[in-house]
Amino acid sequence: MIKVGIIGATGYAGAELVRLITTHPQAEIVAISSVSFEGQKISDVYRSYVNINEMICENADDVVEKAEVIFAALPHGLSQELAKKCYDNDKVFIDLGADFRLKSEEEYKEWYKGEYVHKELHDMAVYGLPEFYRDKIKGAKIIANPGCYTTCSPLALVPALNAGVIDTKGIICDCKSGVTGAGRSLSQGNHYPELNEGFHPYKVACHRHTPEIEQTLTSFADEKVTITFVPHLLPVNRGILATCYAPLKKDITMEELRKIYQDFYKGEYFIRLLDDGQVADIHNVKYSNFCDISLHLDKRANLLVAVAAIDNMVKGAAGQAIQNMNIIFGLDEKTGLEIVPPAF
Amino acid sequence: MIKVGIIGATGYAGAELVRLITTHPQAEIVAISSVSFEGQKISDVYRSYVNINEMICENADDVVEKAEVIFAALPHGLSQELAKKCYDNDKVFIDLGADFRLKSEEEYKEWYKGEYVHKELHDMAVYGLPEFYRDKIKGAKIIANPGCYTTCSPLALVPALNAGVIDTKGIICDCKSGVTGAGRSLSQGNHYPELNEGFHPYKVACHRHTPEIEQTLTSFADEKVTITFVPHLLPVNRGILATCYAPLKKDITMEELRKIYQDFYKGEYFIRLLDDGQVADIHNVKYSNFCDISLHLDKRANLLVAVAAIDNMVKGAAGQAIQNMNIIFGLDEKTGLEIVPPAF
Amino acid sequence: MIKVGIIGATGYAGAELVRLITTHPQAEIVAISSVSFEGQKISDVYRSYVNINEMICENADDVVEKAEVIFAALPHGLSQELAKKCYDNDKVFIDLGADFRLKSEEEYKEWYKGEYVHKELHDMAVYGLPEFYRDKIKGAKIIANPGCYTTCSPLALVPALNAGVIDTKGIICDCKSGVTGAGRSLSQGNHYPELNEGFHPYKVACHRHTPEIEQTLTSFADEKVTITFVPHLLPVNRGILATCYAPLKKDITMEELRKIYQDFYKGEYFIRLLDDGQVADIHNVKYSNFCDISLHLDKRANLLVAVAAIDNMVKGAAGQAIQNMNIIFGLDEKTGLEIVPPAF
Amino acid sequence: MIKVGIIGATGYAGAELVRLITTHPQAEIVAISSVSFEGQKISDVYRSYVNINEMICENADDVVEKAEVIFAALPHGLSQELAKKCYDNDKVFIDLGADFRLKSEEEYKEWYKGEYVHKELHDMAVYGLPEFYRDKIKGAKIIANPGCYTTCSPLALVPALNAGVIDTKGIICDCKSGVTGAGRSLSQGNHYPELNEGFHPYKVACHRHTPEIEQTLTSFADEKVTITFVPHLLPVNRGILATCYAPLKKDITMEELRKIYQDFYKGEYFIRLLDDGQVADIHNVKYSNFCDISLHLDKRANLLVAVAAIDNMVKGAAGQAIQNMNIIFGLDEKTGLEIVPPAF
Repeated sequence: MIKVGIIGATGYAGAELVRLITTHPQAEIVAISSVSFEGQKISDVYRSYVNINEMICENADDVVEKAEVIFAALPHGLSQELAKKCYDNDKVFIDLGADFRLKSEEEYKEWYKGEYVHKELHDMAVYGLPEFYRDKIKGAKIIANPGCYTTCSPLALVPALNAGVIDTKGIICDCKSGVTGAGRSLSQGNHYPELNEGFHPYKVACHRHTPEIEQTLTSFADEKVTITFVPHLLPVNRGILATCYAPLKKDITMEELRKIYQDFYKGEYFIRLLDDGQVADIHNVKYSNFCDISLHLDKRANLLVAVAAIDNMVKGAAGQAIQNMNIIFGLDEKTGLEIVPPAF
Repeated sequence: MIKVGIIGATGYAGAELVRLITTHPQAEIVAISSVSFEGQKISDVYRSYVNINEMICENADDVVEKAEVIFAALPHGLSQELAKKCYDNDKVFIDLGADFRLKSEEEYKEWYKGEYVHKELHDMAVYGLPEFYRDKIKGAKIIANPGCYTTCSPLALVPALNAGVIDTKGIICDCKSGVTGAGRSLSQGNHYPELNEGFHPYKVACHRHTPEIEQTLTSFADEKVTITFVPHLLPVNRGILATCYAPLKKDITMEELRKIYQDFYKGEYFIRLLDDGQVADIHNVKYSNFCDISLHLDKRANLLVAVAAIDNMVKGAAGQAIQNMNIIFGLDEKTGLEIVPPAF
Repeated sequence: MIKVGIIGATGYAGAELVRLITTHPQAEIVAISSVSFEGQKISDVYRSYVNINEMICENADDVVEKAEVIFAALPHGLSQELAKKCYDNDKVFIDLGADFRLKSEEEYKEWYKGEYVHKELHDMAVYGLPEFYRDKIKGAKIIANPGCYTTCSPLALVPALNAGVIDTKGIICDCKSGVTGAGRSLSQGNHYPELNEGFHPYKVACHRHTPEIEQTLTSFADEKVTITFVPHLLPVNRGILATCYAPLKKDITMEELRKIYQDFYKGEYFIRLLDDGQVADIHNVKYSNFCDISLHLDKRANLLVAVAAIDNMVKGAAGQAIQNMNIIFGLDEKTGLEIVPPAF
Repeated sequence: MIKVGIIGATGYAGAELVRLITTHPQAEIVAISSVSFEGQKISDVYRSYVNINEMICENADDVVEKAEVIFAALPHGLSQELAKKCYDNDKVFIDLGADFRLKSEEEYKEWYKGEYVHKELHDMAVYGLPEFYRDKIKGAKIIANPGCYTTCSPLALVPALNAGVIDTKGIICDCKSGVTGAGRSLSQGNHYPELNEGFHPYKVACHRHTPEIEQTLTSFADEKVTITFVPHLLPVNRGILATCYAPLKKDITMEELRKIYQDFYKGEYFIRLLDDGQVADIHNVKYSNFCDISLHLDKRANLLVAVAAIDNMVKGAAGQAIQNMNIIFGLDEKTGLEIVPPAF
């Protein structure tokens, strides 16, 4: 059994890690921590865990000591020292925060107003999007687990970009996220009566996930990709839907397009390429690690519309982190993640 | 008091007309009709109207005879003969359906598979989007009341298009609608457990509102405008949010952009141009005839992002129809529509 | 025009008063106050009011000075001094808080842990449930506007109690409230992802509205009425449904029961006694001042089941407060409150 | 591996069986049937199952032939012949419908207007509520799997009834169910816009689950128990909350009460007796087979308030059916059901 530690266990991503690893057949949680709830049981914070997981939140140091793989779900800026400690102690560190995601320190400074403290760790950190970078993940000691938006949009666009059928400019990612994406912290905007029956964009064309999406897309293109990224807040708990628009470089048929995606995602269990006429829907992936993708061509405007849906807390956070762990520890990638998304 | 008749009163748009006209100080409903519920009380269909409006549904002929202005909320194809009858009897006809919206019969044939029976009526029909075509509406006998998507997107884009600051190609309207937009007819997709906590696009780049939006946009441009229009279904009752992307033809500052919109919508009570930093939200317009617009510039991609929010059943249907009636009958345009959108 | 002041205007009840009085034809808001947002515009707090009401929040003293009727929507304990000031300045004071609701200071002490400072004001305060106490309301200077639960349950039970057909013991009020009832203050329990798709009781058999409901019921019985009151939190914005169970003292037919309710509520515009076979539903009263009541007999258990539905923010708070104002100022009781509940 | 067949697989209970058995480590689905979708894939009906379960719906006869345990999720009246066929072929039959639940044919006739065709099968059928009747279930060939309401209310009340601390008359079960309880069939009442933001009771004191709840309660009392049962429809997908009121026969402390429940449910994995001060919430059990119970005493009215929450589709249908299968086949009762309820 892999010994797992979770730092930041009482946040939403942390709590989802607790849920998923509890039923993982080859991993067990040996310690959890939480700054806000140190000394309290996780089941006091999340009553759905009563009788199932009643572990007490310790401090981060204890977690690092007891575990062989440490998941950290922390606000950005807090993971770097933790990564150092894990690395020095030969632990695997899987960071669900933003600190190791951007290869360029310049971009990190620009978008996060922070600095890279241990540059060598940033150099060795691997961006944990298995469908794209599986080989590098295998031997990694530090994983930068992608954000929710940054998993969904690239999964929709990369095959087309890699095949050279779409432009590297003029790409638009119009994304819609469930509320858990905003985390557990209280805010007026997420107070039930003010969000319910509402819908709005936020951080229009200035969200921090922009450079991260561009970084992934660019790694599959022959020049820098620039996107316009607009996130919206959906009045649902879970799910992200990315509706991605990309100008086509040349005429292409749906059959050709489909073949490109089929070839690219061949053997990828978590990618479900939907049949023609179907549309990706967050309803069909919730609570699971699947990414559903539907493809559409706008012949009138010569545009690809690629739509991807994931559960932001699973494929967009905790599930993907476990997928990375499985790869690193040589397990079948699906271990603990063969979840059937509920029909309702 | 203006004598109002409503044909198709038990559909959602019809029921909303009933609600709004009931409190209109200068109009009264004299007759309503419904094919499905003829002989039954509207309050048997919508229990919220008990004791308030218990009118019995008659047939369409009775409605035409008794009223001086007839609102029709019918599936497309059924309004043409009705329009003829109204016209022949010198009644004002306000059509909430699609039959008179497209100027081009070719486009109607292509998108609706129907024909124009009385071409002279189509020639005289006026597209009832008051903020754009108020002067023509004043003397109209036949109003083609715009659809919901086709109100929201043009309101977001027309000032920029009219000022020549955006391209006529490459415009994308990513729209999200509440469920009432799909009407009262039952479908598996709108069955509560299958829609709730879900979100998906539909009719991707092939929805019938596409040519209607293009027609309005083109009327403010010097060449044919082509758009990509993708609607999505939101798990809320009411509201449409249109996130519209348009390539900028030249550099423009937010101040310049704002001035263009302010000038264009000067004096328009129902248009609320939000301050910088604010975002349009369907939460803030529900049950009202307002259209909230927020403007955003993506400097990195040289793109305008204009976001508009309306209540699909009010500004997107019944409210706008009443606004048109007010104009035709010489009333203050706001009469009966000075609704305060509830804060929650 | 009646000059209205609203103290605590940025809480939910206050914001609802703003919404309703804005369209009241014979009242106008002359001043509003808010401790949290003094100096800010109400439209900065509630964006749905942009362009409609952009009044700046002043302090409470200014409001008392400028207005002739003062509505206060404050946490309990804060209204007594305010009432004194209003009374001394010959203003009408309508309190949406709890300070003047209980006639018995003992009960107030027990349930609210507070004291009655100006006992003479408590003596003259009138409990503002118009359908029961209209005559006393007419000349009142201080109105104790009932709470939401305390409007709904008595409206369901009083006619039967008054007619002597149900017991004064063994009555159960199982109530379910929308989230706005919990107010605007943030709490983990009302954070969207933790409330959505959930449902639970709270303060089981120990909620402060218990003695208030009993006080009203007892005023229509010949002995002290004791109830069991259990509130639940519904994942909807608005509405309260009270399912009230009362043992029948004798056999009674539905016809007899119906006649008792019809006679009792004769001429009451805001009470809608539903036909046999119908059930009260919060869906049908939302945004309005109506109370829908459905009656059911359980012959097997010899029990009355009376179900009442109101909008907790309107008939359960702001709407009823305005109804009280209308009565005091000699207006038609319906003025400003003839709202058609939307069908969806 | 136990060979499982599911008849009525495309209804909600059937689809939930498909979901749960797919991940059951010691059972496999060998055939499914559906009258409405014969010849189609289950994944065409429920898109969340794409790539996971794409079995084709056969007819019921094929299912009986191929499987060793047959689950039937059918409207009442259709299970009796099926049970006969299974019995004659020595298959285990687990009926999620109502045909075998009532021991009294008289009550079946009264509430379901049907007859018992094969009386000997009704005699041998065992009511499948494991926490109460585990021993009988062990050797059963025909299981009458309880309905959703009929699981939840008895679990809340039986320990107190069994201990003799509550009356057998005057019990009230005020229950609230998520919409999946109404099934997949379309109805206006479950059309999204007409249910959303609504809440209402239905079949007040006349729902068919009444005699079934009474039958279970009576089996733990020394006289016939009569209840008043009022179900309500919650605007959520899943979950039932039963708020049960029962007059206390004598004074009892919370400690004594708690001990009664602890002793009764000792070792029951799926029963979570919550700590004092906690309340049962459907949020905490969804997607799982748990039943959360919170206990409350109303000292003023001398009443027990016992609240139970389950997922209506799991412990109230498919999960409990699998629990029964596990018992019959000698597996650990929890097999395939150790689900962690998601925290959000």
